[in-house]
Amino acid sequence: MAQDKNPRRPRAETPKGFRDYFGAEVTERKAMLDKVAEVYHRYGFDPLETSAVETVEALGKFLPDVDRPNEGVFAWQDEDADWLALRYDLTAPLARVAAQYRNDLPSPYRRYAMGPVWRNEKPGPGRFRQFYQCDADTVGAPSVAADAEICAMLSDALETVGIPRGDYVVRVNNRKVLNGVMEVAGVLDPSDPARFEAERGIVLRAIDKIDRLGDTGVRALLGEGRRDESGDFTKGAGLSGEQAEVVMGFMAAKRDTGAATVAALRGLVGASVIGGEGVAELETIAELLDRQGYGSDRIIIDPGVVRGLGYYTGPVFEAELTFEILDEKGRKRQFGSVSGGGRYDDLVKRFTGQSVPATGVSIGVDRLLAALRAKGRTGGEGAGPVVVTVMDRDRMADYLSMVADLRNAGVRAEVYLGNPKNFGNQLKYADKRGSPVAVIQGGNEAGKGVVILKDLILGAKIAENATLEEWKDRPAQVEVPRGELVAAVRKMLGQ
Amino acid sequence: MAQDKNPRRPRAETPKGFRDYFGAEVTERKAMLDKVAEVYHRYGFDPLETSAVETVEALGKFLPDVDRPNEGVFAWQDEDADWLALRYDLTAPLARVAAQYRNDLPSPYRRYAMGPVWRNEKPGPGRFRQFYQCDADTVGAPSVAADAEICAMLSDALETVGIPRGDYVVRVNNRKVLNGVMEVAGVLDPSDPARFEAERGIVLRAIDKIDRLGDTGVRALLGEGRRDESGDFTKGAGLSGEQAEVVMGFMAAKRDTGAATVAALRGLVGASVIGGEGVAELETIAELLDRQGYGSDRIIIDPGVVRGLGYYTGPVFEAELTFEILDEKGRKRQFGSVSGGGRYDDLVKRFTGQSVPATGVSIGVDRLLAALRAKGRTGGEGAGPVVVTVMDRDRMADYLSMVADLRNAGVRAEVYLGNPKNFGNQLKYADKRGSPVAVIQGGNEAGKGVVILKDLILGAKIAENATLEEWKDRPAQVEVPRGELVAAVRKMLGQ
Repeated sequence: MAQDKNPRRPRAETPKGFRDYFGAEVTERKAMLDKVAEVYHRYGFDPLETSAVETVEALGKFLPDVDRPNEGVFAWQDEDADWLALRYDLTAPLARVAAQYRNDLPSPYRRYAMGPVWRNEKPGPGRFRQFYQCDADTVGAPSVAADAEICAMLSDALETVGIPRGDYVVRVNNRKVLNGVMEVAGVLDPSDPARFEAERGIVLRAIDKIDRLGDTGVRALLGEGRRDESGDFTKGAGLSGEQAEVVMGFMAAKRDTGAATVAALRGLVGASVIGGEGVAELETIAELLDRQGYGSDRIIIDPGVVRGLGYYTGPVFEAELTFEILDEKGRKRQFGSVSGGGRYDDLVKRFTGQSVPATGVSIGVDRLLAALRAKGRTGGEGAGPVVVTVMDRDRMADYLSMVADLRNAGVRAEVYLGNPKNFGNQLKYADKRGSPVAVIQGGNEAGKGVVILKDLILGAKIAENATLEEWKDRPAQVEVPRGELVAAVRKMLGQ
Repeated sequence: MAQDKNPRRPRAETPKGFRDYFGAEVTERKAMLDKVAEVYHRYGFDPLETSAVETVEALGKFLPDVDRPNEGVFAWQDEDADWLALRYDLTAPLARVAAQYRNDLPSPYRRYAMGPVWRNEKPGPGRFRQFYQCDADTVGAPSVAADAEICAMLSDALETVGIPRGDYVVRVNNRKVLNGVMEVAGVLDPSDPARFEAERGIVLRAIDKIDRLGDTGVRALLGEGRRDESGDFTKGAGLSGEQAEVVMGFMAAKRDTGAATVAALRGLVGASVIGGEGVAELETIAELLDRQGYGSDRIIIDPGVVRGLGYYTGPVFEAELTFEILDEKGRKRQFGSVSGGGRYDDLVKRFTGQSVPATGVSIGVDRLLAALRAKGRTGGEGAGPVVVTVMDRDRMADYLSMVADLRNAGVRAEVYLGNPKNFGNQLKYADKRGSPVAVIQGGNEAGKGVVILKDLILGAKIAENATLEEWKDRPAQVEVPRGELVAAVRKMLGQ
């Protein structure tokens, strides 16, 4: 019966898995992305902004069911029966752009893109269906110098936004080395690349889980399979003990220096042509970076990096933050990965039929922002506005001219626009706004041509702090001539 | 048969009505919005970023058909049968936020929002289905001081982005005055507000078309109706000649000063209570603005402004750019409207049942940007990167260390990452990139420890200009020691 009263009133709610961002949440992200863009710009990358909507055909990939193609994406049918969808990343639109404008774009084409992407997934705690990505890619550059450049740029970007050197590391690996190891282990036949594809998929996913499952778990997945704590069984790759040993050796090939790691990998890939090529590429990347001053304090060769995505064809990289934070349960753990990428030479080919080399990196914007917050490296709330209170609603013009004076002097300021009857509400409002100073002028003050300035930061400190000792030289409230309003406020703000 | 060759290759195309933005198109818009945000911030407005996706229920409005509610919006059904849609403006999400967080937000709540919105309309020339809006609104402030503040802020924003005073005007009107005139004309009955609603709708749309249809056309629409050039007939409001005269008088009520216009309007609304209220509000707005220094060179009372949207309940405003541009046919015309808004006191009520006063403005981002371009007030392409060419691919590390040196000195620089075999292609690439300087180091130069710098801007000027006279003191190419690379490039760039 209660419902019948408001039969048509809509619910004021975001859809499940979506959220709103207020104030500092918006400005902090923007400040971080502006700094990243500045680095990308300096490296010669140009911005690209594609629309949120693409044809499902152009997005490709997430299409197990052609009739209702919204597994993983938000999709709908246009009035002329085309399926449209919200982009799920910034790489698929780039591949489309690189194909569509291939005769007009400079080649190589370096571009960066920042913006929201959408995933039609079950939302979970901290997992949203709209989130920001920040990508930089080079299309049309076959040389691993392009991969080295991306790694150096990622390192610069992290330091520029406020992650100090030593608190992060960019790890580099190469899918070709992994393929070489697969060849040696007998699960890749260069004369028949499709053979053992399922097995290699299992091996790839197993390696990617080493942090979580440990050596024993990975060995189980390389062999017959693994039963987890809940009793669920995951089928393994069916490798023999000897074969598995080769793969495990690969994961353990990291040495103290890049040169030593490369030497270890060279031993592991043996006579594999693709493997040898991958090792040589890693060696070149390490040398190029070293010559630019990016040593192993910033960028290292690490065979443990595989990256989940299937489309990588060469170098892969990952930026990890190495400082510790406390997790939800109060345990110390490393912050972990905030960015990853690699070379994908076949995405543009989907459209044009011609292979176009490409390499790039994506920064997880929310994770990096969380890291900066954890390190206290964001701007925080920022200054609230000076609030000019309203003592006499007939003199609104006077109050508005005060805020105009303040603003014209560059001071963030506003007049109280709610119902002015209850003065306490005005001060509560100023408090909620994080206001540093309240300006007050009642009839008395107006008659004398003065205003009262209330130092709200001092007021808050006093409220927090029992002893007034340290504040006694600072008056919480001053009366100044109206003509000195701006100067007095600026003084109170320490400007 | 030809199609069978590539049976599954997707088309590399944006969906119809969508487009991509490259380079300066992105940076110019961003620079403009950053300046607007700075003004809004100084006025005490906080940023809000809602997600692109809302429930259709929360968006409301565009829903003539409940089963397939995508008239005007892009909508789809979620897996749990909820209809979701892309937002079509930034006001509907604000109303939802104001209702959802009403116990947490400061009241009044001043917020700004910038971002894309989507309309499921037939695309046309220059009309896209995704475009940017930039809004500022105050929720919870009943006083017209809030409307005056929005007008002043709009004026400041236009000047800050680069529209000089005198090249724009903010026009202010009040729907209540219009309602008063309707009452006098006999198409509004205060005791039965629903009566004559259809007629008033026709009158409103007719007034809004005065620029296009002229007096005669509007009079026809106020009376029996109007047949246009194509023979199509639009039904009129059915007003008598006397009634129509009252409405026409309203549109012609603008006088040289705000005070004179207000006096004329007061005569027109006669004894109408709502009309008198509206005139008094306009008078207050004009006075408040005047006291802050916003005179009739910036903001004027103009009864010709109605704004199409149905939800406005009080003051309405519009910013018009008054300078002339040439249209597609080479004719001079005023640039016209770039922004509009007004007071809408009932949008939040949809959710809560309680009326919440609100007022705000929306800037048409693409139109304002077009105006800035027409006035030559945007940054333009900006500087292309210095391009370090590759003469010898085995010395890539040398070239990379050159770009690293340049970047570390703050110079935008990149190495050529395409196939270096054809040197002409490298210079063509540098040209396409708008590069000011090319750096060249072949084996000879490397042996001598020098680099060659080619001044590409000078080169382009020489190519444009037959006479070398004015450039003769400026060498198009210099050879400098490698150690002086950075200093010499900066000198060439005039840094």
